[in-house]
Amino acid sequence: MDIVAAMDRAVEASFAAMGVSSPNPPVGAVILTADGTVAGVGATQPPGGPHAEVMALRAAGEAARGGTAIVTLEPCNHTGRTGPCSQALIEAGVVEVHYAVSDPNPVAAGGADTLRAAGIRVTGGVAVDAVENGPLRPWLTRQRLGRPMVTAKIAAGIDGRIVAPDGTSQWITGPAARDHAHQQRSRLDAIVIGTGTALADNPTLTARTADGGLYPHQPARVVLGHRDLPADANVRGDTGGPLVCVDSHHPADVLSALPDALWVLVEGGPHILGAFFAADLVDEVHAYVAPMVLGAGRSSVEIPGVTTLDDARRFETREVTTLGSDILIALDRSSRASAQD
Amino acid sequence: MDIVAAMDRAVEASFAAMGVSSPNPPVGAVILTADGTVAGVGATQPPGGPHAEVMALRAAGEAARGGTAIVTLEPCNHTGRTGPCSQALIEAGVVEVHYAVSDPNPVAAGGADTLRAAGIRVTGGVAVDAVENGPLRPWLTRQRLGRPMVTAKIAAGIDGRIVAPDGTSQWITGPAARDHAHQQRSRLDAIVIGTGTALADNPTLTARTADGGLYPHQPARVVLGHRDLPADANVRGDTGGPLVCVDSHHPADVLSALPDALWVLVEGGPHILGAFFAADLVDEVHAYVAPMVLGAGRSSVEIPGVTTLDDARRFETREVTTLGSDILIALDRSSRASAQD
Repeated sequence: MDIVAAMDRAVEASFAAMGVSSPNPPVGAVILTADGTVAGVGATQPPGGPHAEVMALRAAGEAARGGTAIVTLEPCNHTGRTGPCSQALIEAGVVEVHYAVSDPNPVAAGGADTLRAAGIRVTGGVAVDAVENGPLRPWLTRQRLGRPMVTAKIAAGIDGRIVAPDGTSQWITGPAARDHAHQQRSRLDAIVIGTGTALADNPTLTARTADGGLYPHQPARVVLGHRDLPADANVRGDTGGPLVCVDSHHPADVLSALPDALWVLVEGGPHILGAFFAADLVDEVHAYVAPMVLGAGRSSVEIPGVTTLDDARRFETREVTTLGSDILIALDRSSRASAQD
Repeated sequence: MDIVAAMDRAVEASFAAMGVSSPNPPVGAVILTADGTVAGVGATQPPGGPHAEVMALRAAGEAARGGTAIVTLEPCNHTGRTGPCSQALIEAGVVEVHYAVSDPNPVAAGGADTLRAAGIRVTGGVAVDAVENGPLRPWLTRQRLGRPMVTAKIAAGIDGRIVAPDGTSQWITGPAARDHAHQQRSRLDAIVIGTGTALADNPTLTARTADGGLYPHQPARVVLGHRDLPADANVRGDTGGPLVCVDSHHPADVLSALPDALWVLVEGGPHILGAFFAADLVDEVHAYVAPMVLGAGRSSVEIPGVTTLDDARRFETREVTTLGSDILIALDRSSRASAQD
């Protein structure tokens, strides 16, 4: 396997660490033997547990000696709850290290230098765009902005309606779109809804597989607003992540209630989504569009104070994907419009 | 050039006849010499003018003798204002004819039989799906349903809003989406708007090229509703197609005011679009989606009487295309939901 293919494999492995590793970065690592065979694959374990490099080295055992390590993030150089990964790679006898993203965190950085000083050949920047925009994006957002990455989720008909006048909204999107949304849930730290949505739809906010089982990782369930939830509300169910009630409508209060979160999904309703757009706190939009015209009912987003077209929030189209008969449009914060990035 | 490539070329040529040939079908034809060289290409001329086969034969001249004709529609067999195309092909000495769609019109059909009786080898059904869903689709819709094909056009942000609260809507979509919409206008018979849109936006409803020039074909401009338009309204401008005022809100009245039209585009506003959806008269939706969240303002479609999700109009996703930073989603009438097809 060549280095780029091994990096793909490392990225793939790191998806399993998303949500689980927080507040640490979800990293993936692959160890190749000297002849290019995969000897071990690893991903970051929950806080206090081993990092990706250590997991991959353990899987490789003695086969790592003389081999190559491929890691999505520069190996760390500091002793926290675990020893430095750079030291582990040196001790395992790895002779070459390739990583994608340099560590922007001054406490952990310097791993590449340590490895080089030990005589290991080190290359940074391998497939860096794919990794920065992949599993490491939420963590990099937190490093840069001091807050989690925020994705606004919309599931609507082609006319932007998310619910009919009588409140019915199941199902606008089909099974493939729902499976995708649940897979996303299994990778993030928190889902945010308002008390209005919690009371109207009574969702569980769990991350479920296509066959109805639960994903191993369940995100925190954050309910925003002043109203109380009934004792038997589904979001209180013990099969999901912890329930966090935030007695505020301010997006900043939500984010500060989640100090360890890397990635937060805002699901609605329209006024909660609008508050995040108004506060310029949306980094990404996931719009699931169903081939359907409702023609009445509520629209997906209500932003306070919008009067003219110049007030519209402009994004950049990143990716358009077909999910069964639905379409997923992924938008990113516009590099032109943003003062923050 | 092989037969399938020649059919592609014939389809391409037939786009130029769309809107122009109505109420006749916009057909394309290619004549290949015996060794497979393109000798002539033609498309249907305005009513009373030559059909595609005759145009292609004229371009080919004596080179047609011993050659092959490739036509998007079965050559006609009847003498209307022009002679039968089957006869013209026989006289030109063509030895082989390939066509895509059989003529469903009993008056014109029988061309294939006439050709065979003259000793010509004839194949029907070549690339039939592409042709039926391409330039011939509006004409086939009229043959089948006795009314034009109706496309509903929406240009909106990701939240389905088409206009900000103060009435501003220029520009939600970008230049590539606008160019595409104008190219569509140049191929259709009529654009339908309501008096509300005519008074609020004062559009010209002309089909303009990217550099601001006019396309050779301009669709009829149909304004629907009870209010009068000012004498200097832009839709009265003499650079566009004829103005048709329909003093009614009923979609059926619009369609019967356009007896020769094959393809009609309904542009809005929301209540006009809603009336066509409510009457089950929308065959196709063209949704141009901009990577933008307005968060307030009017939604693209208002359908009267919708109360619950079961009232939603469901379509099938046919194609998703990126146009600059915008996305064009083309939806077709759902084969499951339709009683009419």
